[in-house]
Amino acid sequence: MHSFKELVNIFATHFNQAHFPDNPNSLYEPCNYFLTLGGKRIRPIMCLMGNELFDEIKPDAFYAATAIELFHNFSLIHDDIMDAASLRRGMQTIHTKYNPNTAILSGDVMLIRCYDYINKIQPIYLPKVLHLFNKTAREVCEGQQLDMDFEKLSAVSLEDYIKMISLKTSVLIASSLEIGAVLGGAGEGNCKKIYDFGINLGIAFQIQDDYLDAFGDPEKFGKQVGGDIKQNKKTFLLLHALEVANQNQREELINLLQTDSSDKVERVTTIFKACNVDAWANELKEKYVQTAFKNLEEIAVTSVRKKYLQELASFLIKRDI
Amino acid sequence: MHSFKELVNIFATHFNQAHFPDNPNSLYEPCNYFLTLGGKRIRPIMCLMGNELFDEIKPDAFYAATAIELFHNFSLIHDDIMDAASLRRGMQTIHTKYNPNTAILSGDVMLIRCYDYINKIQPIYLPKVLHLFNKTAREVCEGQQLDMDFEKLSAVSLEDYIKMISLKTSVLIASSLEIGAVLGGAGEGNCKKIYDFGINLGIAFQIQDDYLDAFGDPEKFGKQVGGDIKQNKKTFLLLHALEVANQNQREELINLLQTDSSDKVERVTTIFKACNVDAWANELKEKYVQTAFKNLEEIAVTSVRKKYLQELASFLIKRDI
Repeated sequence: MHSFKELVNIFATHFNQAHFPDNPNSLYEPCNYFLTLGGKRIRPIMCLMGNELFDEIKPDAFYAATAIELFHNFSLIHDDIMDAASLRRGMQTIHTKYNPNTAILSGDVMLIRCYDYINKIQPIYLPKVLHLFNKTAREVCEGQQLDMDFEKLSAVSLEDYIKMISLKTSVLIASSLEIGAVLGGAGEGNCKKIYDFGINLGIAFQIQDDYLDAFGDPEKFGKQVGGDIKQNKKTFLLLHALEVANQNQREELINLLQTDSSDKVERVTTIFKACNVDAWANELKEKYVQTAFKNLEEIAVTSVRKKYLQELASFLIKRDI
Repeated sequence: MHSFKELVNIFATHFNQAHFPDNPNSLYEPCNYFLTLGGKRIRPIMCLMGNELFDEIKPDAFYAATAIELFHNFSLIHDDIMDAASLRRGMQTIHTKYNPNTAILSGDVMLIRCYDYINKIQPIYLPKVLHLFNKTAREVCEGQQLDMDFEKLSAVSLEDYIKMISLKTSVLIASSLEIGAVLGGAGEGNCKKIYDFGINLGIAFQIQDDYLDAFGDPEKFGKQVGGDIKQNKKTFLLLHALEVANQNQREELINLLQTDSSDKVERVTTIFKACNVDAWANELKEKYVQTAFKNLEEIAVTSVRKKYLQELASFLIKRDI
């Protein structure tokens, strides 16, 4: 059994290698560049932990984890084009450093490369893992599409927003865990539980992310507080505020969405607080956290095996254990 | 055994179905739209013919053929963005009809969908077919990248150009044939021969396409004659002309490349003819045709089984049989 930190190092010894040939350099150099930007490697570690919940880590789990991390990077490369984001982890995105065509094609070839790693998995597990991986890949695309669609809508229901978040971020976490579990020999019931755990954890994490953007301690929160508000991003908080605000508050909010005044963040968070959006968000997050931990509890393995996954989940949703 | 025309109809009964769910409509409607634009379905038919060369068509061959046709369409969707092409088969391309972001994401989800069909193939064949499919998918991306790179270079060697054409178009034809052969139970030697047949046929076809663009009968050639010349496209003909022209001719050619004069096509083809580019292209094409037919001949099955593939190849490279 290994802790998150240990697995980060173990995974790095497998992942930090050449994933692409040298030529054409104009195609593969951007892929290599993007992978050097790093990242927390949460998803592949989830895959390894999903495996280790049931058995020792198999070589197959490293292949799956590698495919998952490459897929995540592919989705970031293409999302960055669609979101016109010029920076990723403080460095230039591919379409900015090179050009959009290179970003499209590098993303394509990174997606294709995922399946080479999936294809290294033992034939007995291959169809099941490929099915899960592919279903998830499609869902991540659907999530990105819904996200873009929602940006154009004036109203989005909380239910639809949760569905979008679930597709855009939770399914890959959930599927990483389940693929690991499958490769660890888990049965269907346990696979379903660990998948649900990932879904609920992912949603809780996103609610927290939205919360911290508005109410976080600027010194602890890695990003600029109020970034979502400045960009008029549809977040859990904004959607709920628009639902529960009285007429004056709603009108002020809608007006604020159309301005760029210097006190915009302050005025929006004041309305959020007046509408008890902060308490509501904490409660909603807690609901998903509770469900996630219940899912984990119900997985039929001894509790000692769950220790590190519990630790990682608690760390992600900033919960004391 | 079935002729090309029969297989077109048989394949249509498998392919003309819903490949995508209904929602999100904003993601999947563009995919469905693009598939309705049609096409000759040469590649999937090659897959079926590759199978039928060795055995009756297996259900697996239809899954592979479907994946191949979806992959071809994915590559067209993304290539159209990169080439800024507004029309495809006389209809609007996805990035023109919708927008570039939708075209990126629809292409992604179409690529992912391919692997669902690959995953329907019997486990005994799955790893081999997935390997071949994936290697080819990567090579098609490399071909597109080289094509974009070459457009920026002033000189490209014939060898490099053939490599690019081979990656961009021949490998998918070759791999379609080989995947069909694998699923028909062909051994390694026969698989290699049919793959090489596809590579050589693809290159011959491209030389012919370049030739017809400059020297074709406007009434028989589907496209506008001289289109490549007007666009200064690096073709077999232009690359060879620049190599063999005398100094005056080369200077005139280079000057013509920088103009849009109304007699540009006429003057370029005059230089081509003065340099015997037409005869050279015919010879070069014939060299690849001969090699292709030799490859086909060497496949160890009775010649009666080769009849329809021979017919299709002869039709594609306009050769009497």
